[in-house]
Amino acid sequence: MSVCAPRGWRAAGVVAGTKPSGSLDLALVVSDEPASVAGAFTTNKVQGAPLVVARPVVARGRARALVVSAGIANVATGQAGIEDTERMAEHAARATGVPADEVIVSCTGLIGRRLPLDAVLAGIDAAATGLSPDGADAASRAILTTDAGPKTAVRRLTVRGRTVTVGGMAKGAGMIAPDMRLHATMLAFVTTDGAAGPNELRAVLGPALDRTFNSISVDGCTSTSDTVLVFANGASGAEVGADAGFAEAVHEVLAELAYAVVADGEGASRVVRVDVTGAADETDARTVAREVATSLLVRCAVAGGDPNWGRIAQALGQAPARLDTGRIAVTVAGVPLAVDGIETGRTAEAAEKMRSPEVTIAVDLGLGTGSWTFWSSDLTPDYVRFNAEYTT
Amino acid sequence: MSVCAPRGWRAAGVVAGTKPSGSLDLALVVSDEPASVAGAFTTNKVQGAPLVVARPVVARGRARALVVSAGIANVATGQAGIEDTERMAEHAARATGVPADEVIVSCTGLIGRRLPLDAVLAGIDAAATGLSPDGADAASRAILTTDAGPKTAVRRLTVRGRTVTVGGMAKGAGMIAPDMRLHATMLAFVTTDGAAGPNELRAVLGPALDRTFNSISVDGCTSTSDTVLVFANGASGAEVGADAGFAEAVHEVLAELAYAVVADGEGASRVVRVDVTGAADETDARTVAREVATSLLVRCAVAGGDPNWGRIAQALGQAPARLDTGRIAVTVAGVPLAVDGIETGRTAEAAEKMRSPEVTIAVDLGLGTGSWTFWSSDLTPDYVRFNAEYTT
Repeated sequence: MSVCAPRGWRAAGVVAGTKPSGSLDLALVVSDEPASVAGAFTTNKVQGAPLVVARPVVARGRARALVVSAGIANVATGQAGIEDTERMAEHAARATGVPADEVIVSCTGLIGRRLPLDAVLAGIDAAATGLSPDGADAASRAILTTDAGPKTAVRRLTVRGRTVTVGGMAKGAGMIAPDMRLHATMLAFVTTDGAAGPNELRAVLGPALDRTFNSISVDGCTSTSDTVLVFANGASGAEVGADAGFAEAVHEVLAELAYAVVADGEGASRVVRVDVTGAADETDARTVAREVATSLLVRCAVAGGDPNWGRIAQALGQAPARLDTGRIAVTVAGVPLAVDGIETGRTAEAAEKMRSPEVTIAVDLGLGTGSWTFWSSDLTPDYVRFNAEYTT
Repeated sequence: MSVCAPRGWRAAGVVAGTKPSGSLDLALVVSDEPASVAGAFTTNKVQGAPLVVARPVVARGRARALVVSAGIANVATGQAGIEDTERMAEHAARATGVPADEVIVSCTGLIGRRLPLDAVLAGIDAAATGLSPDGADAASRAILTTDAGPKTAVRRLTVRGRTVTVGGMAKGAGMIAPDMRLHATMLAFVTTDGAAGPNELRAVLGPALDRTFNSISVDGCTSTSDTVLVFANGASGAEVGADAGFAEAVHEVLAELAYAVVADGEGASRVVRVDVTGAADETDARTVAREVATSLLVRCAVAGGDPNWGRIAQALGQAPARLDTGRIAVTVAGVPLAVDGIETGRTAEAAEKMRSPEVTIAVDLGLGTGSWTFWSSDLTPDYVRFNAEYTT
């Protein structure tokens, strides 16, 4: 159900011809009623044309149609890429009856190529014709590129007696190190039938993003197309903008989608979860957690099931954060490997426990109350093979 | 010849028993006469005990004996690790007749383990007995860990009619992303028979380091033990401290050794050379060059022989530097792939030329006169296999 789980949302996924595989490659999601939107985009200075066109729409806070084209990212395509995007939005507007300035276009795939515009416009027509409350599954598959499968999440809550639903879909398995400032190529699209204005949605999205998509990495490469959008059409009849339960539901949907991205990280065999506690402050905790989670040597060690805490020590020492090496405690898969900065000799025990789909590395810095969790995937030979073969 | 190419230097390499392989694992290098020293150490906040002990010696600027133990890094070993290091220095002093405060100990290998001290001290005795002007080859092999082979360099120059020699040896293939401030697990040791005080050596070492060891990366992991030392014993009779030719010779020796480290990067099949020009300033050029050279996706593309300039664009857009995306030119293996930020369509031609041991990626930002070169190795499945299997 994902993006069609909330009331008043229809979707479709079709084949326009932008993926060499011939799979579903174009998604359309439309609200029956006007909707608010809040969004965040990559901080990479090279940005896709769709991001340039979407920013003012998201800034106005009003949109109810989303077109996603997968296979070609429409990045580094100059003014022509901008014009292609604008033609897609105008075409989708005509086909769906939504005003053109309430349509958002999003693309993901190869950088540097123009879209086959005629094929994409015909795909938009086919998708508009096929829009349905049952179209979310096809839409969630159409937005994928190197992903193993679709990523969706749904939460329901009751606000003042009314059922509110939050649904989301995401894509992404490589070029994943989102750094969005009310701001991923991950793409994540969340819909709700709660009623909320764009400022309320932004207030919910910001903190949720920092602890979810902005706290994952597959390969440390921040994409040129990362985009998260949250749409609210109010069809439930419940005002949710100031509701803590709604904020939590959005956070949970984003967290579930972000986790699905690292779990599907290119070539990944395990999720690496790094919990940092005892940091001098939250910024330090985040910096250390990211450094450990993204270390190539740590990620290789997790792939090999090796509780190599020396590599964890190396990584945290590299982080620009306050450290007292005599106070560091490192626990891997629940087994303390270092206390007060000195080895405990329990590596064999930890190695046994690392044979699981998720490995938690817990680092206590012993300095303060700052804490943060960062997720990544392990680094396997398959990641390298895949990315040496995936070609332009 | 390496460190024994200059006059007045003797060396030895022996088996002390710190490598499971039973290979040469302890090197000793001694000057017959008193010598000046300048050095640089890692900026990682977790630092090996040998670095803690060596800092004050290097700060005084006077040392003429070097002990290098390979196999165990003596990092995260607490006060006991410090005492082990001090005992090694004292033992080497007695065995060689050099004052204890003119002995520098350096270690590389596994983090978190204590040295087998008795075996190491016996190794120091054996090395002292074996010191010889012909011992440099054994020494250059004894300092290796995951390296495929020894790394040495020699330059000769004439200063006021006298022949001055600069010789060096280095180790390192993984955990390589040196960031040393008059300050590297790469280890590099340079000797000369030129006469120079420690301040003069520091003045030569600083700028040379920035454009050599501080501009290479194998895996982005800045080691806890990185160390570069330059020793000058004056045996040539030529004052070289203010000599431009001497500074150039030291720079060339460090550059040759640094290049050898990336060429021997774990699992590497190719050297990636990134030349950035046209940056707003030198700092921006360096930042962009490092970001492109260390990108996992770029390194995988080079391994695959794929001129994927979109990944280069992604990486440079991620760098915290000034960019105008419409002015970027990207050339791979001599073939222009993007001009003014737009693809040229010449990827097939570039793919042909990428089948060589070194691939140059040239990025012109079109903004100013800042330029920098950064070297890395490509990322292959062998890197991952090696580091998943290399175990604690």
